[in-house]
Amino acid sequence: MTTDTPTQAPKPASLPVIRIQSGRHKRAQHGHPWVYSNEVDMDKAAKALPAGSIVRVTDAGGATLGLAAFNPHSLICARFLTRDPAEAIDTAFFVRRIRRALEIRERLYDRPFYRLIHAESDGLPALIIDRYGDIVVVQANNVAMDRRLPMILAALDEVLNPSAIVLRNDSTARSYEGLAEEVKVVKGSVQGLIPLEENGATFFADLSEGQKTGWFFDQRDNRSFIANLCQGRSVVDFYTYAGGFGVLAAKRGASHVTLVDRSALSLSIAMKAAEANGVADRVTAEKGDAFNLMDQWVAEGRTFEVVIADPPAFVKSKKDLAVGSRAYRRMTKAAARLVAPGGMLLVASCSHNMEPPLFHTEVARGLGEAGRQGRILRFAGAGSDHPVHPLLPETQYLKAMVFALD
Amino acid sequence: MTTDTPTQAPKPASLPVIRIQSGRHKRAQHGHPWVYSNEVDMDKAAKALPAGSIVRVTDAGGATLGLAAFNPHSLICARFLTRDPAEAIDTAFFVRRIRRALEIRERLYDRPFYRLIHAESDGLPALIIDRYGDIVVVQANNVAMDRRLPMILAALDEVLNPSAIVLRNDSTARSYEGLAEEVKVVKGSVQGLIPLEENGATFFADLSEGQKTGWFFDQRDNRSFIANLCQGRSVVDFYTYAGGFGVLAAKRGASHVTLVDRSALSLSIAMKAAEANGVADRVTAEKGDAFNLMDQWVAEGRTFEVVIADPPAFVKSKKDLAVGSRAYRRMTKAAARLVAPGGMLLVASCSHNMEPPLFHTEVARGLGEAGRQGRILRFAGAGSDHPVHPLLPETQYLKAMVFALD
Repeated sequence: MTTDTPTQAPKPASLPVIRIQSGRHKRAQHGHPWVYSNEVDMDKAAKALPAGSIVRVTDAGGATLGLAAFNPHSLICARFLTRDPAEAIDTAFFVRRIRRALEIRERLYDRPFYRLIHAESDGLPALIIDRYGDIVVVQANNVAMDRRLPMILAALDEVLNPSAIVLRNDSTARSYEGLAEEVKVVKGSVQGLIPLEENGATFFADLSEGQKTGWFFDQRDNRSFIANLCQGRSVVDFYTYAGGFGVLAAKRGASHVTLVDRSALSLSIAMKAAEANGVADRVTAEKGDAFNLMDQWVAEGRTFEVVIADPPAFVKSKKDLAVGSRAYRRMTKAAARLVAPGGMLLVASCSHNMEPPLFHTEVARGLGEAGRQGRILRFAGAGSDHPVHPLLPETQYLKAMVFALD
Repeated sequence: MTTDTPTQAPKPASLPVIRIQSGRHKRAQHGHPWVYSNEVDMDKAAKALPAGSIVRVTDAGGATLGLAAFNPHSLICARFLTRDPAEAIDTAFFVRRIRRALEIRERLYDRPFYRLIHAESDGLPALIIDRYGDIVVVQANNVAMDRRLPMILAALDEVLNPSAIVLRNDSTARSYEGLAEEVKVVKGSVQGLIPLEENGATFFADLSEGQKTGWFFDQRDNRSFIANLCQGRSVVDFYTYAGGFGVLAAKRGASHVTLVDRSALSLSIAMKAAEANGVADRVTAEKGDAFNLMDQWVAEGRTFEVVIADPPAFVKSKKDLAVGSRAYRRMTKAAARLVAPGGMLLVASCSHNMEPPLFHTEVARGLGEAGRQGRILRFAGAGSDHPVHPLLPETQYLKAMVFALD
C-alpha cells in the first residue's frame, strides 16, 4: 500500500481503502460527494493515513464506490473526486475537470471574468478558482487540494496558460485543516488593481488583499437586476466594497448613487470604477458604518428611491445565528425606512448558516417593524458560475431579495 | 348595517364588523393578508353575511385592522384589501391598485405583455389580470372580486383603456366559490390568435380557449436563460404548448428544435410562432405523449444537447402529492437519459402543493436513477410580474431547475 505524492499519482489499485459501514453506503452510492467519519471503519490504519491522501471508498462488502480525498481528522472524512476507480488523480484529471468547468462558463458568459471552479459543484472539493481574464486566483481549502497545488497549477497552465496565478490561501477554512495562511503570486506578476468586466461595466479588484479573491462574482445577476430598475432614480449602496451594485446602477442611468463603506480603500476602488465607466459625476462616496449612517439618515428624514444593502456575513457560525438573524432584521428595518414611497429595496445575506426561509422571515419582520408593505420581485441566489451540487442544496449560501415597496 | 353592492361602495363606518378572537390578531396586525374562519367570532350575524361582502376586521378589543373581502363559507374567511379603514373599496380603489401594479411592470419590461395583477401580491386577492398589449384578460377567482367586476372593468378603462377585455372566468378556483364558469369578451372583440412579444420573440395566444389566460408569462426569465445556452445545439421541448421555450431557443440559435405536445392545436400555434420568428426551417413539431416519446427515444438511443420539460401540474391537490412527486422523478429520469453527454436539462413544476425542497429532492433522485451527474446552474421561480407577498412565501408556486450534466 502506498500513498500518493503531490507530483505523482499512484495506481488506483494500490490506494488505501476506506470502508463504509454496513447499511450506510446508500447516500454515497447515490452520488452524494461526502462521507462522514462516523460512517466508516475508522481503524488504526485509517487513522494513520496522512491528511489529504487519496483513498478508494468501498461499501461494507468491498464494492468500490469511488476515489476520495481523505482526512482522518475531519468530520467529513472523505470527499469524492471520481466515481471511476480506474481514474488516476493526476494533472490530466485536473485538466479534464477544469476544461469541463471552463466549457460551461464560456457557454454562460461572453467575457472571461467568473468563478471557474466552485469546489464540489465542479467536481473538485475544497478548490476555488476565480478567473480575471488572463489572471487566475486559486484557493485550496483542504490538505488534499493544498498538496496537489503543483498538479492544479500545471493543469491551469495546460488549459488556460494564464499570464499570472495568485494563491489566495488565506481563508479561515484552511486554518480548520491546519494549513498555513499565505498569499503569493506563483506565476507572472500582479501589480496593483486588476480590471475586470461584469454586466458591461468595468470594475477593479485587489487580488492580493481584497475580500474573497478580490471580487464577489456571485452577485452578478442580482446587480444587473436591480441596476435595471434604477434609471432616473436616486440610489444608495451600503457595503459597496468595490462598487459592484452602485457603479452599475449609475452606469444603467441612476440619477445619483451614494456608495457607503467603512473602508476608505474600498471606496477609492469603487470610485475608480465610477471614473472608468464615466459616471463619477453622479456617484458620491460616503465613508462610515452602514448601521450608523442608516440610523442617522432615518432621523434626518432622508430617503432614496432605491436602497441596496449587501453586507458581509452577520452569521459566521451556527452559534451566531440568533444574534446574526436579528442583525438582518434590524438592517432591513433601517434600510426600508430609507426607501422613498414606491421605491425599491435589495437586501442580501451571504451567511452559509442562515437558510433562505429564515432570511425571508427576518427580512419580512424587518419590513413589518419599519411599517412598510410591498412585494417581492426577486428572491435569488448566486449566479450560474457558482453552481450547486444536486445533492448539496445546503451549499447555496447567497440570498438576495428585491422588494417594490408601497 | 348595510352591505355593499358591486357598483357602489358603502361608507367604511357602516361596514359589518368581523372580530378576530382574543390573542389571535398578531399575524393580521403584522401585515398577513389572510384571516382564517376559526380565528374569528363566526356568530350568527357573520354567518349571515353574503359571500363577497366587504367587512371591517378588528381585534378582540375592537381596534380596526383593515377592510377585507369576506366569505363565511371559506376556510380563509377574510382577505385584506386595505389597512386603511377610511378607504372606500370603489372604482378609485381599483384604479390606484392597478396603476401601482402597472408602474412596477413598466419599470420591469419594455413591452406591454405581462401579468399585470397577481392577486394578493398586488393587493387584490383572488384577482388575476394579464396584459396582451391592448387587450387584457381578467379572472376573478372569488365572490368578492366577481361581484366587483363592474368596478374592475371601469378601473381598467380608466388606467389602460384597452381595446378589448376578456373575462376568463373558467378557473377551478371559481367552482370552489360556487361561481359559474364563463368566458366572454366584455369589451371590444377578440378574433383568433393574439400576437405577443416576449424575450424579443413573437408568440401567439388563444385568449378564449388556451390554458391559463392563453400564455404562461411566469416562465419568461427561465425561457431566456436556457435559450441562451442553446446556440448551435439540438433541443427538445416537451410540453411546448405555444412554443415559449422551444421557439425562443431556435431564435437564439439552436441548430434544431423538436417541439412535443399531445395537442395538435398547441403545436400549430407553436409552429405559427416559429414561422413568425423566421425559424420554422429549424423547428419540428412532434405530436405525442411526453412520457411515451421519452421512453421510445431512450430505447432508440436518441439524444439531444438540450432537453426541456415543463409539464402541467402533476400534483393538483395535496392528496396527489405522493403520486405526483414520483411523476416528477420519473419525468426527470427519462428526460436526463435523453441528454447528450455534456448537455443541459431544464425541468419545471408549477404544482402549488410541491414545495421547492421536495421538487429538488425528486429531481435529484431522478438524475441518480438515470445514472447522470451534473450541477445546478439555476433554480428559479416565476418572473417578477408574478411578485410574491412577503408574508405568503408559500404562494411562490413555480420551480425551474437547469442542470449542466456531465
